[in-house]
Amino acid sequence: MSKKLPAAEEPSRKITIAEIAAEAGVSVPTVSRVINGRSDVSADTRERVQDLLTRHGYQRRASGPRPSSGLIDLVFSDLDSPWAVEIMRGVEEVAHAAGIGTVVSAIHRRSSSARQWLENLQARATDGVIIVTSALNAPQQAELRRLNIPAVIVDPAGVPLLDAPTIGASNWAGGLAATEHLLGLGHRRIGFIAGQPQLLCSRARLDGYRTALEAAGLPVDEHLIYQGDFYHASGFAGGTKLLALAQPPTAIFASSDQMALGAYEAVRRRGMRVPEDVSIIGFDDLPEVRWSSPPLTTIRQPLSQMGMVAARTVLRLVQGEKLESPRMELATELVIRESTAPPRS
Amino acid sequence: MSKKLPAAEEPSRKITIAEIAAEAGVSVPTVSRVINGRSDVSADTRERVQDLLTRHGYQRRASGPRPSSGLIDLVFSDLDSPWAVEIMRGVEEVAHAAGIGTVVSAIHRRSSSARQWLENLQARATDGVIIVTSALNAPQQAELRRLNIPAVIVDPAGVPLLDAPTIGASNWAGGLAATEHLLGLGHRRIGFIAGQPQLLCSRARLDGYRTALEAAGLPVDEHLIYQGDFYHASGFAGGTKLLALAQPPTAIFASSDQMALGAYEAVRRRGMRVPEDVSIIGFDDLPEVRWSSPPLTTIRQPLSQMGMVAARTVLRLVQGEKLESPRMELATELVIRESTAPPRS
Repeated sequence: MSKKLPAAEEPSRKITIAEIAAEAGVSVPTVSRVINGRSDVSADTRERVQDLLTRHGYQRRASGPRPSSGLIDLVFSDLDSPWAVEIMRGVEEVAHAAGIGTVVSAIHRRSSSARQWLENLQARATDGVIIVTSALNAPQQAELRRLNIPAVIVDPAGVPLLDAPTIGASNWAGGLAATEHLLGLGHRRIGFIAGQPQLLCSRARLDGYRTALEAAGLPVDEHLIYQGDFYHASGFAGGTKLLALAQPPTAIFASSDQMALGAYEAVRRRGMRVPEDVSIIGFDDLPEVRWSSPPLTTIRQPLSQMGMVAARTVLRLVQGEKLESPRMELATELVIRESTAPPRS
Repeated sequence: MSKKLPAAEEPSRKITIAEIAAEAGVSVPTVSRVINGRSDVSADTRERVQDLLTRHGYQRRASGPRPSSGLIDLVFSDLDSPWAVEIMRGVEEVAHAAGIGTVVSAIHRRSSSARQWLENLQARATDGVIIVTSALNAPQQAELRRLNIPAVIVDPAGVPLLDAPTIGASNWAGGLAATEHLLGLGHRRIGFIAGQPQLLCSRARLDGYRTALEAAGLPVDEHLIYQGDFYHASGFAGGTKLLALAQPPTAIFASSDQMALGAYEAVRRRGMRVPEDVSIIGFDDLPEVRWSSPPLTTIRQPLSQMGMVAARTVLRLVQGEKLESPRMELATELVIRESTAPPRS
């Protein structure tokens, strides 16, 4: 029989991992890699460590009614991100059902704040951490790994080079679907307002747009592509610029909902109407765009489902399970409301 | 010198309160009332208990670098409330600065869910609880009190009969300011879309509207008052009905932002424009209404500040401080954007 672990306290967990590392003749990070289901461990080391974890009942810690601290941490850059509450809903729902509390923190993009959060984390117990996109920089992520706490990243933005299991969405397919929707309505001049170019999701959405045009036999006119940054003001600026072209587009694909609402305002300022004069499609399906006027046609990112999968994944890591894949992308979906219509003939 | 308490664990806190109750010759709830700063304790009992709390170093528990668990709980009915993330931002900011983690939960208006949350709370430590409006019903609030955990209620809705210190906003003054703004622009027929009548905030906003009209020497026309429920659909229905009157209003005061955006849609469906044909003012100043088209003029509820005050208040209660008042109302504020203009002459 596996021995019962002492009462849930952070030190006892660390000792167990260190003991297992010593017994297996490997380093503590190696044990942590096995626990986190990472692939950069040789097969026989993995087997030896996994065997010790099982024999010493490491897995029992979480297969009982609750893991040690009864808490997981959910870390954002900022809580005013339009995504924050949607992701949180998904995480909280799964954690709550498992009897686990969700500790929500915002790092505010300040490294002093991230440092304090890491210190708080060491002072109290947590079973696992869900990081939303770029809340922690690379050295902070490395420090988190040294704490041997399982971590999962929710990444709606497509930040490159993340060193932990990642949950994202199919941005390229979403870009394709949005553009095909406008093409299907008969639009031939379709403007595109891009997001921050350093984020992979921006490029994936743009590539979906290009591919849809090319598949329809249409040229990609670079004048119709405006470089935005995902925020409202850049959608307004982009919409204003596109509508002032000598040959303006009859439809605009804004690659975030915030930018789509900015484009609405550009249309209104010109005394024009959505969708009678210009069709607009967004990307995200934030809850509030149902209340836009007209209600926004958009590409739904399954943000709360991404939060749910992240919570399930981190709870699996807590139990020492191995993941099937280091990255998982959930499907995006076209949601047709009232902001798109055939072009004026 | 006061004796040092044992390491931070929930049981030690309970034992301390019970010991103090025994030594003071009072009940545990009485000690709890003193700790929570409630007024229903006689002056000499309060003094005796406070003296024992001080002598036994109960206050020291929190006057050190952190209280016992390093956690406070923040409980919502649902995380999809438009208020949720704003209140959370304020709570998290204050807690984070104090080195305290914020555990966020949603009760989903299910009593089974509230029960599980209370059980989770007993299984892990927490220093204090912030409840947002009606997340817990009266028996659940009573159970929370039996756990001797300091609690504060954030109450943007004005729920009557709350038995804990409460943080709200000045709804009546906000209703007055919104109506005076429209009167100042020259409107004389002003529609009002009311919120749920069982909530005090709805009545306070309506009374502010009536008072402003009466102060301007205008009659209150009951045809111009539509009974909504704070949600978008009722704003659309209310706007549609008011605009179809034989003598329609030239301006509408919707007593929530969601209802104001519903009224926008009613205006659009009639082929009219905001503010050229109808002025609209909301109430809340949710972050997303800056992105409405046109940007919404509204009454700002200081939601994140209410969260900050709630967090500071619960941390004061944790330290055994007495509050100056059981209810605190923060000021609302008129935010003028582009959805209000003088009526067509």
